[in-house]
Amino acid sequence: MPDQALGQKAAENLETVRTKKPLIHNITNFVVMNYTANALLACGASPVMAHAAEEVEEMVSFAGALVLNIGTLSMPWVNAMLMAGKKANELKVPIILDPVGSGATRLRTESAKRLIKELSVSVIRGNASEVLSLAQEGARTKGVDSIHRVDEAETAALELAKELNTTLAITGPVDLITDGRRVLRVSNGHELMGFVTGTGCTATAMIGAFLSVDREPVDATATALAYFGLAGERAAVHSNGPGSFQIALLDTLFNMDGDTLRNGARIEV
Amino acid sequence: MPDQALGQKAAENLETVRTKKPLIHNITNFVVMNYTANALLACGASPVMAHAAEEVEEMVSFAGALVLNIGTLSMPWVNAMLMAGKKANELKVPIILDPVGSGATRLRTESAKRLIKELSVSVIRGNASEVLSLAQEGARTKGVDSIHRVDEAETAALELAKELNTTLAITGPVDLITDGRRVLRVSNGHELMGFVTGTGCTATAMIGAFLSVDREPVDATATALAYFGLAGERAAVHSNGPGSFQIALLDTLFNMDGDTLRNGARIEV
Amino acid sequence: MPDQALGQKAAENLETVRTKKPLIHNITNFVVMNYTANALLACGASPVMAHAAEEVEEMVSFAGALVLNIGTLSMPWVNAMLMAGKKANELKVPIILDPVGSGATRLRTESAKRLIKELSVSVIRGNASEVLSLAQEGARTKGVDSIHRVDEAETAALELAKELNTTLAITGPVDLITDGRRVLRVSNGHELMGFVTGTGCTATAMIGAFLSVDREPVDATATALAYFGLAGERAAVHSNGPGSFQIALLDTLFNMDGDTLRNGARIEV
Repeated sequence: MPDQALGQKAAENLETVRTKKPLIHNITNFVVMNYTANALLACGASPVMAHAAEEVEEMVSFAGALVLNIGTLSMPWVNAMLMAGKKANELKVPIILDPVGSGATRLRTESAKRLIKELSVSVIRGNASEVLSLAQEGARTKGVDSIHRVDEAETAALELAKELNTTLAITGPVDLITDGRRVLRVSNGHELMGFVTGTGCTATAMIGAFLSVDREPVDATATALAYFGLAGERAAVHSNGPGSFQIALLDTLFNMDGDTLRNGARIEV
Repeated sequence: MPDQALGQKAAENLETVRTKKPLIHNITNFVVMNYTANALLACGASPVMAHAAEEVEEMVSFAGALVLNIGTLSMPWVNAMLMAGKKANELKVPIILDPVGSGATRLRTESAKRLIKELSVSVIRGNASEVLSLAQEGARTKGVDSIHRVDEAETAALELAKELNTTLAITGPVDLITDGRRVLRVSNGHELMGFVTGTGCTATAMIGAFLSVDREPVDATATALAYFGLAGERAAVHSNGPGSFQIALLDTLFNMDGDTLRNGARIEV
Repeated sequence: MPDQALGQKAAENLETVRTKKPLIHNITNFVVMNYTANALLACGASPVMAHAAEEVEEMVSFAGALVLNIGTLSMPWVNAMLMAGKKANELKVPIILDPVGSGATRLRTESAKRLIKELSVSVIRGNASEVLSLAQEGARTKGVDSIHRVDEAETAALELAKELNTTLAITGPVDLITDGRRVLRVSNGHELMGFVTGTGCTATAMIGAFLSVDREPVDATATALAYFGLAGERAAVHSNGPGSFQIALLDTLFNMDGDTLRNGARIEV
């Protein structure tokens, strides 16, 4: 049964984002920059994309959260992520990492591991194979799509969260969120989300927005994923396919009211 | 009361863009490239995005206007902007600058100032804090969002336009356009525009399109902003939120007819 | 009269893409990355965008096709294309090239020619002036838009396809596909496609998806273009302009069934 206190917290977090309009600093991939920025605006946050070594430290100092995403990665961007991340750690700005394609290529896997090693990351969100590639040697992903099922991943995720001392969110039909002690599951979402590029990356950005106003990483992550997933469910009702769905999703993120989120969030402990 | 001659000129400028299909060369940020290109196509212009040092001088030589936008900036892009800009000046291709985030970081502020110093820029469009950061030492912006109100900005804008010998457009609920002598105000627009990323950048691109066919910068800027703002008003009628709005805005830019623009433009002298 | 066997093959190719979900590796331009990825997902393929020298060889080894697109080009990207392309050739992964803006600037023309010279490319898709610039000295294009008509291009295309030992697709109101021996024409499409940025690039990506399951380049190209063009025709029915059209196009690519494609494909021999 959905946890009512967490449903309530989801509504409160959304309201706080809309009131405070936190600046979310994204160093993210070229494919999703526009959609992520629009989704952050739709939820009430204030997005900025900035990746130059010359400005990332300054930019992150204004931010409520730093979102690092390794899609379309290249070495200068890894360096910018490290610079921004170290400053974020110093200023206690929470960092959320999306290890897009980790496990698929050495560059992605090694870069994700390096970011985790050199930075204190609050939350890592990915599909099962991406997240598990951060531990298992030789894990493979097919491009950026998952080859592991969420239900295979729970034990590994609990251990990995402890080992990395962070909160992990493995998203799929049911999302698994754990910091190595608590385990939450979020079952909001819709299958059309898999046919729109960057919905995972956008979920990560939503976590960034919620984490900027709720410093309890497991709660912030679960409530953000419930909000995003519920918006997906409701957007799908008015959609004819993935094109109209991606647009309706922005509308739904924007129009979601607290009661709808409180009652529709399916977060289980 | 709206100026009728400028309403008429707006309709004429739009018609000329559709007839001549000017090539608009954009060196702009990753977030808005797609939307800007689509908006330029919707208004009848022919967009090209090109930023390599090896080709910007050649590309700008085919162009009716050069749009420089410093979002997602890095040093190689600043250099490309300078190269393209110098060639544009040589060929009398008008330059429009969007100082995205100027005032927020030193890189943005210094790059914007350098572009203005080394190039002859016809029009600069930004929000109040971005534009005023080009003059005031220590001005701050919160990311790319404005912290100054347009009405506070008029006196400063008039002086700054004279000092920089250019036309400034400070956009907000009411847009202020001045070359240091004339002052125009455009009150077209809709609040949903603030919830779509890159509407400011797209307004800048529209100015580029109009400036390519109307070399009077104050008129070209005001008529372009009236066209874009009016399209926003009309798109909002058919929208459920910022997602459907951004799509309807492209449709409305495309479908706008001369009479609607002539009668709907609210440009005041 | 439309060739029925090719209509049938179009339906089969689409079905196979949906079943196999081939990974399509794109090294493409910033403007169209998001739309191309969404179109590939809508047709059933699995897109990945990756351009770093450190990972392109590894990424292409998982791919069913490699799509190279020279819009928003810079030298590091040309090098990445060459690295990925050589690996693709070694592994017999088919390469599709979109010479965006070739003929407009020396960088584009020379880069396209270099890619063709150093790689074995299965299909090249562009507008008439882009494709013909690969042969003719001094050919000019106006930005990325075509100044040659398809009907002027047939003789030149036949000779050029032989000379380059590849399949050429010159797209326009009627698409011309030839490998220097066979000539096919596809008359599906809608004029609104010319008002959405990146529809050409997206057509190229669709060819990549089809070529990954149908190694006969002329057939794969013609069937992909018929599918994409037919989706455009059907999307236009429900559109108010280029904004709603681009969204409806994704929905239509996603919802297209085999019978509709078989009956609607207009491929002539």
